[in-house]
Formats: sequence, C-alpha cells, structure tokens
Amino acid sequence: VKITLAQLNYRIGDFEANTTAIIHSINKARNEGADLVVFAELSVCGYPPLDFLEFDDFIEKCEHSLQQIAVACSNIACIVGAPVRNHNPKGKPLYNAAVFCFEGKTKVFRKALLPNYDVFDEYRYFEPAKDFELLHFKGKKIALTICEDIWDVGNSRLYTLNPMEELWPQQPDLMINIAASPFHYNQAKRREEVLKANVSQFGIPLVYVNQVGAQTELIFDGDSMVINEKNEIVYRLKNFEEDSYTFDIDLLVGINTKETNNNQIAKTARIHDALVLGIRDYFTKSGFSKAIVGLSGGIDSAVTLALAAKALGNNNIYGLLMPSQFSSDHSVNDAFALANNLGCPNSLIAIEDIYNAFDISLQPIFNKLPFNITEENIQARIRGVLLMAISNKFGYILLNTSNKSEAAVGYGTLYGDMNGGLSVLGDVYKTEVYELADYINRNGEIIPQNSIVKPPSAELRPNQKDSDSLPDYPLLDSLLFDYIEQELSPKELIMRGHDEKLVARVLRLVNLNEYKRHQTPPILRVSPKAFGMGRRMPIVAKYLQ
Amino acid sequence: VKITLAQLNYRIGDFEANTTAIIHSINKARNEGADLVVFAELSVCGYPPLDFLEFDDFIEKCEHSLQQIAVACSNIACIVGAPVRNHNPKGKPLYNAAVFCFEGKTKVFRKALLPNYDVFDEYRYFEPAKDFELLHFKGKKIALTICEDIWDVGNSRLYTLNPMEELWPQQPDLMINIAASPFHYNQAKRREEVLKANVSQFGIPLVYVNQVGAQTELIFDGDSMVINEKNEIVYRLKNFEEDSYTFDIDLLVGINTKETNNNQIAKTARIHDALVLGIRDYFTKSGFSKAIVGLSGGIDSAVTLALAAKALGNNNIYGLLMPSQFSSDHSVNDAFALANNLGCPNSLIAIEDIYNAFDISLQPIFNKLPFNITEENIQARIRGVLLMAISNKFGYILLNTSNKSEAAVGYGTLYGDMNGGLSVLGDVYKTEVYELADYINRNGEIIPQNSIVKPPSAELRPNQKDSDSLPDYPLLDSLLFDYIEQELSPKELIMRGHDEKLVARVLRLVNLNEYKRHQTPPILRVSPKAFGMGRRMPIVAKYLQ
Repeated sequence: VKITLAQLNYRIGDFEANTTAIIHSINKARNEGADLVVFAELSVCGYPPLDFLEFDDFIEKCEHSLQQIAVACSNIACIVGAPVRNHNPKGKPLYNAAVFCFEGKTKVFRKALLPNYDVFDEYRYFEPAKDFELLHFKGKKIALTICEDIWDVGNSRLYTLNPMEELWPQQPDLMINIAASPFHYNQAKRREEVLKANVSQFGIPLVYVNQVGAQTELIFDGDSMVINEKNEIVYRLKNFEEDSYTFDIDLLVGINTKETNNNQIAKTARIHDALVLGIRDYFTKSGFSKAIVGLSGGIDSAVTLALAAKALGNNNIYGLLMPSQFSSDHSVNDAFALANNLGCPNSLIAIEDIYNAFDISLQPIFNKLPFNITEENIQARIRGVLLMAISNKFGYILLNTSNKSEAAVGYGTLYGDMNGGLSVLGDVYKTEVYELADYINRNGEIIPQNSIVKPPSAELRPNQKDSDSLPDYPLLDSLLFDYIEQELSPKELIMRGHDEKLVARVLRLVNLNEYKRHQTPPILRVSPKAFGMGRRMPIVAKYLQ
Repeated sequence: VKITLAQLNYRIGDFEANTTAIIHSINKARNEGADLVVFAELSVCGYPPLDFLEFDDFIEKCEHSLQQIAVACSNIACIVGAPVRNHNPKGKPLYNAAVFCFEGKTKVFRKALLPNYDVFDEYRYFEPAKDFELLHFKGKKIALTICEDIWDVGNSRLYTLNPMEELWPQQPDLMINIAASPFHYNQAKRREEVLKANVSQFGIPLVYVNQVGAQTELIFDGDSMVINEKNEIVYRLKNFEEDSYTFDIDLLVGINTKETNNNQIAKTARIHDALVLGIRDYFTKSGFSKAIVGLSGGIDSAVTLALAAKALGNNNIYGLLMPSQFSSDHSVNDAFALANNLGCPNSLIAIEDIYNAFDISLQPIFNKLPFNITEENIQARIRGVLLMAISNKFGYILLNTSNKSEAAVGYGTLYGDMNGGLSVLGDVYKTEVYELADYINRNGEIIPQNSIVKPPSAELRPNQKDSDSLPDYPLLDSLLFDYIEQELSPKELIMRGHDEKLVARVLRLVNLNEYKRHQTPPILRVSPKAFGMGRRMPIVAKYLQ
C-alpha cells in the first residue's frame, strides 16, 4: 500500500483554491501509483477558520468541497480534514473530522481531544468524539487521529480520555495523524517527542501530515514525517514549504532511514524562516505585494526591512526615513546604508515642520507646560501619519517594527510606531532581534554594523537612550521570558534570581500596558507564548499592577 | 432559613477589595438575621479573569481569600464563587466552583457546563464537573449550580449532560444559581425565560445571584432574583447597581409577589444605562476620572459626550472641536451648542495649518496625484494626534465615537477617528444611536436637534455625505443585523428581502475590514453579538470577500 503525504499551504475560506490544490495532489499521487493521499487537518477550509464555522453557508461549502474531492478519488483514496455536522440533538453542532474519501464515498472519523488553550479554541465550535473506530483500507487497519488526539502523553494528562488507548484494543497496524500544528521555535522538538512517544507506546508506524503556510498570526511549518515501528524518522518533509512524499508502507521495515535531526537547525534560523513565510503569506493571501517600513537607523526597523525584502523582493519594500530635530546623523546614515545594501526604494521626510505646526496649534491649550512624553508621542504619531499616507496612496501595507520587549512593557506609541498591518517582530525579544541581525548578515553585511552596535534609542528627546527608562535588555528579556513564556509568579521569579524591585516594576508595566497591546496589529507568532490570540488578559484589572 | 442575595460589583484581580466587600456583606447580613448569604460566580477574583487563571499565584490568592471569607462566616454561612484546583492528574487544572463557607470550613460545588461561545472561554481554563451532590444546610436540600449549568434548556441541547437533571433524584427543595451573566439588550428577557423554564421543570423555588458592574467590554446588569415554586418572581434586585435582598425561604409560599415586568423597560433605556455603567466602571476601575471626546457636530460624538458626562460628571469631560477647511459652520455651532448644553469644558483647534504642513512634506513623494481617500485619512489622523496629545498631557482617556455600522463596513480611519481607550458606541448601530439621542433628550434638549436631523457626513471633502458611499442607514443596519447578530448566509439574507447586490457588497466590506476592527479599542457590549472578544474572524481569509 503506497501512501502519499501531501503537505499543502491552504487559504482560509478559499474553497475553490483548496479543493483545486487537493484534487491536483490526488491526481499527481495517482500517477505515482499511490493508493492513499493524506492531507492535513481542516484542509478543506484552512486552519483556523474561527467563527466562519458558525455560518451555515460555510459548512455547506465544506460539504460541497468534500463531494468534489470524493468524486476525484477514483482508483485512489484520500484523507482530508473538514468540519462535519453533529446530527445528534445534543452537543455542539460540529465535529472536527478526518474524512476518508474513496470512489465517490466518504467515511468520517472525529477528533476527540479539542485543544482549547493558548491560540486554540476548538471547543468553541466542536463536540469531542466519544467513540472510536479503525479505518480499514486494503488490508491495513489504520488508527486515524487528528492532531491533539495523540498529544496527551506523559503522566499529567489534560484530558480524561485517550483516543489511541481507546483504539488500541482494535489492533491497528498503522497510525495516521493529520494536523494543523503551528510553529514556535521549540515546536519541532516537542512534536518529535510527542510523535515518538506514541510510536514507543504502541510499536506501530506513524504517518504525520501537517499544514504549511501562515494564517495571519499562526505560521505552520509543515515538518510532516513518517516514523517506522523502530521509532526512526524514515522521512521528513520540508519546513516552511509545500512538499509531498510517497512511500510503500509494506516496505517501511528495513528502509534506509534518512533521519534528519531537525533539532540542530538553530533557533534563530527557524525564526528567520518562519517570519519570512509569515510576511509572504500575509501579503500574497490578502492580495498585496508591496510593503512600507519606517526606517529609524535602529536595529528593529533594519531587521524588519531585511525580512520583508527576503519575503517580498527588494523592489517591493519602500523604506521611509523621518528624522526629527532629535535624530542623530548616524541614524539617517545607517538607514540609508541599509536601504542601499538591500537596494530598496526609499526617501526621507523631515518631520520638524509638521511637528512645529502641531506645537503652535496646541499652544493655547498646553500653555507653557514643559516638553514631556506628550511631545515624544507627537513625533512618533507624525511618523505614523506619514507612513499611513504613503501606504494609502500607493497601496503598500505598513509593517510594524516593534519588538516583543517593547510590546511587553509598553515602550512604544499607540497610533505612532505601534501602527501597521502586521507586526513582524512583536514576538521577538530585543536580544533575539540582535541574533536575527547577525544571522541576516551571515554572508555579508546587510544590516549596517553601526545599527547593531550602537545603544538603542527612540531619539524622541535630546540624548535619549532606551536604558534611561528600561533595564538593560538581557536583564529585561530574561525576566520577561520567565514571566510571559514560563508564567512564573513574582515569588518564583525572585527565587530564580530576578531582582525584587525589578520584578514588581516590570510586571506592573506588562499588566498596565495590556490596553496598548489590545490595539496592536496581529503579531507573527514564533514563541510558545506570543502576544495576540494566544494570550488573553483583562484590560481593566488590578493584579500585579 | 433566611437568605441574603448580595449583588456586588467586583474588581478583577483585586482580592483585597473583593474580599473586603464580601466580608462586609456577610457581616451586614448577619446583623439582619440571615443564615446564608449568596454571592455571584467567581466573586472572589472577578469575572472574567481570563489568563490570570494560568498563574499559580493568582489561584493562591483566591485560596487565601476563601480562607478569610470562611473565617468570617461565623454564625452565618455564605456561598461565593472561586476557581479551585483539580487534584486529579487528568483533566484541566481548575474547576469553576461555588464554595459554601461556614464556621471556617469550606465545601466545593463544581460547574459542569462551561460556556465556550461568544464572549465565553471557560473550557480554556476549567474541567467540567461530572458528579453532582446537593448542599444540605439547616434542613434544606439545595441544588447549587453555577450560571450555564441551568441554561441548557429546551429540545436542542448544547451539552450532553444536564446538572439539574442529575441532581433531581436527590430531591432538592431549593435551587440556588450563582452567575456572571453579562448584559445585552435581550438578556433580561432570555434570562427570565431560562430561570422560569427550570422552575417550571422542577417545581421548586430558585434563588439567582448575578454580578453587577462592567469589566472592560462586558457589562453585568445584576438582575438577581428570587422565584417561588409557582414560578412568580417574588423579588428582583436592581439593574446596573449593587443591591441586596434578604428573605425567609420558609415564608416564600404565599408571599406577596412584586413581580416587576423588567421586559417593559425599553431597549434604548437599557442600552443607555448599560453604556453609562460601562464608561463609569472602565474609568473608576482603571483609576481615571476624566475623558476627552472629539466633537464633530455629528450625532455619534454628541451621544458619546452625553453618555460620558452622565457617567463621569459634566466637568470631567473635555470636548475638542477640530474643524478642517471642509467643515461646515453648522458643525462647529452644533458642537459648541452641545458642549454648552452639558456645561463641559471645550476648545477648538483648526487643523488646516497642520494639514498643509503634511501636504507640503508629502509633495515630493505624492507629486501631483489627485486628492483622494489618503488626504481624507490625513485629516482624521491629525485629529487623532491632537486628541491623544491632550489625553497624554492632562491624563484624560480618549473616548472613541465610532458606531457599529461604521465599524462593520470599515467606514472610519485607523489611527484617526478609530482611536480611543474605549469605544462607547461600537456595538450600537447608527439607527440605534438616533434612538439614544432621542432618549437622552427625553427631558429637554441636550443633543442639538440639528445634530439629529442633518444628513450624516464625515466632512473630509467638499459636500461629502455618508450616503455617497454607504446605503441609507436603516437599510444597511437591517442587513448588518441579519448578518452579524443572526449569522445568516448570503442566500438567506436575499430570501429575507435584502437586495442581492447590496448583500454581496456589504458582506465583502464587513469581511475585508476585519483588519481594522482587530486594532480598535475595546467596545462596550450591549447586543447579543458585538465586535470584540465575542466575534473572532480570520483577518487573512477569502470568504465572502
């Protein structure tokens, strides 16, 4: 029995594109002599479809796609992911299903474990399956599960039931898992552990097919694979790209393994590739091709520009310099050097005249109140208006350049430098931005060395440095990581060696600034805990503030 | 047995304030001779605590509060709501619990039905209870449930298990339900139906205690009540205010009912009161007292100003007029008239000079490209910068004035008139804004008649009218309601009589503009389906676009 793993990049709600791509893969696999093609979770509609699932028309369109796919399965079978209706009068109206299609007919296998944490909300839409059945195909007994179904391994279990343990008495000889498992920099390692824990427990091969491609915040890395019963990775599909692989399950034993130790790919390289895919798919899937970035001469905008140029092509990225009276010469020089290194179109608008116009207009109300953060914000907001003006006039999408450290403590101006259609670095701590810069420069200088080595500054008042108001980034980032990713309590943070006063101050800043993060652009998620859909905090509250 | 219903306004994560208020109510009830005081769902930490629940320290603080409350329950018992740990190694780490406290001891009753739709995410945090037990207190057998536990009534059930039906064989003689049931304009009616469906099914009295007060988007209206076994509402607590009520359960039969038909309170009056509470609590709970509103002379900003003045006091609302070269005289006059009617501090900044400064600065890039929506947006964004400047300088919170019709179709400028800390009217359709204006004027003119009768206009280009680019509001709003609140499909909308072309155009606008709504301020929720946490749509997608 020959099986094809089809790792595709789906478009949410684009039934025509998804169905066409799926049927194309089926036809290709048939030509290669495959008996069964396996696609990812919710491949028919894309993942995550979110509240589109509440619209009857959306479900009808899924059903229509399934019919077309089933009809295309002549002399070949496939497994696709789709929402299917729950016809029982009790329970949520839908199931998250793996649908086996063969010769115009379909058979439905339902997901039992519905992730409902971090970025996942599946219990919002789906009823969990409570009964379990193998798929019988050409003499094979297949335990067909969906993503989370095989993730509840180990001693502490999030769910009270385990699908593979329920299926085991029926004596399957193969596991197939279809997934929509988004990337973060530790996910490949964790995924491999989880898949191998299953093979180790049950001693049968596992075929794993994941989505690839970015869906706004979520980046799917692919990394589909085949594991034999000896728990060796026989084949691993590409990361961050569409890919497919056909193999004969009966020849799996004794096959030469080409296990790639994916874990050796450096974290920074993974993040780089994920962000490039995240930018590219955001643009292509929403029908845009050009981006604009405000260039300060600093490292955040430089890394954002370089990533965007990689994703969309140098010519499609417009860099705008907007120095104020507080900008240093080196800022302008560094920004021009960057744009020149990349060959990106760019120009400069000095903002002093506009700033003065605001200053004069506000004088009757501000009287002689001293310059403070208000005037700093005005500069940032003028830049926001200029960037959006060019964005509107020429159809560019503005890329936001804020990093995760700034986003965490609210070091940024709402409606100013926090503007943008997409935040590229909002899940990348400042210290990681430096690592990205070095990685981008690995084959020669793209980001000017001066942008990397100079002390970070917002340059919104004379001689301002980030370190005037924030702790040094290595210190800050390590504390933020322990609080945000590790969810440690103040007590635990102090036990870890973080300074008590700093803990109180930083946690207060993080919690106070929830209102700012509520209004930021979607952030490309590359860590296990990103700001955005996966971290939901009250805005008005009084906890650690 | 005397029972006190304590309907309090909690603060999320403010354990000291909540515990103090709870203990104060316990002491007061003891003085009134009560045997049992009933508080709302998650009263110890406030609702919704969201991801604070993932922090161990937060749960410890809940446990500490419970201990303090239990100790305070001397010669009196109480029921409070709190998260409690799941000590089983399987399942989610917490339960949503009603905790019975008496003489220093506690007994835990767990929620079984966890709402996970619209604004609710309870399955994100909690394990559903699967076993059920009555509370025995002073000879009474009490079926103690939590909010959603009693809401799954009727033929079509969202859950596969029903807590009251599980408890019924144990022969309870009283139901107590503690709730965190947020307001929308139909909720009081629906709530009454649901509570009465339970009394009707089981034939025993029901004590219902809800939260009151606003928590960012969610507004809890209170509306706690006692229903006797004949299904009469014996007493109903105040809407939108803290309140309490003590009664003797043994004297409930034959008591004079003073059933108030809450349903007769007009929808507009409810929305008005909800918004006033929503504004007030947003400010007081985040430690602010003053608001700024941009006044255009139009109806949205007028209604926003009037509501804010009601919530915070006229002197605490600053109105800023910012006419451009396209503003009409009547706009300025109407805005001044409004501010004068309310006695709110106000001033005027003309934006033409600033606009010209932008125009000149952008000329080298824009060349001779014609005036279009870019320049309209620049005006809106200049106003945004000015409002935020005053907000920053004086510590005002900017109130957003966009209505739901605009938010739906993206008729608004991101980083311009879409700015604000809180959106007051973002869940109020334009046609409903007019109803609010009439209601506000019910005892005399506050909102100038001219703001009500003139055709709506953004005044961003000469002679612009909303009707140039949008269908008439009654037509638009009725279509939006059927699509957003009713979740009808294009086919169904057309069957309802909506014009086919208009359906395609408006649905496309709604879906295309998801990216704008992603960056808007939190919106006070007054309808069954508001933009915000209760409506989650993909940003990059291709469905109905």
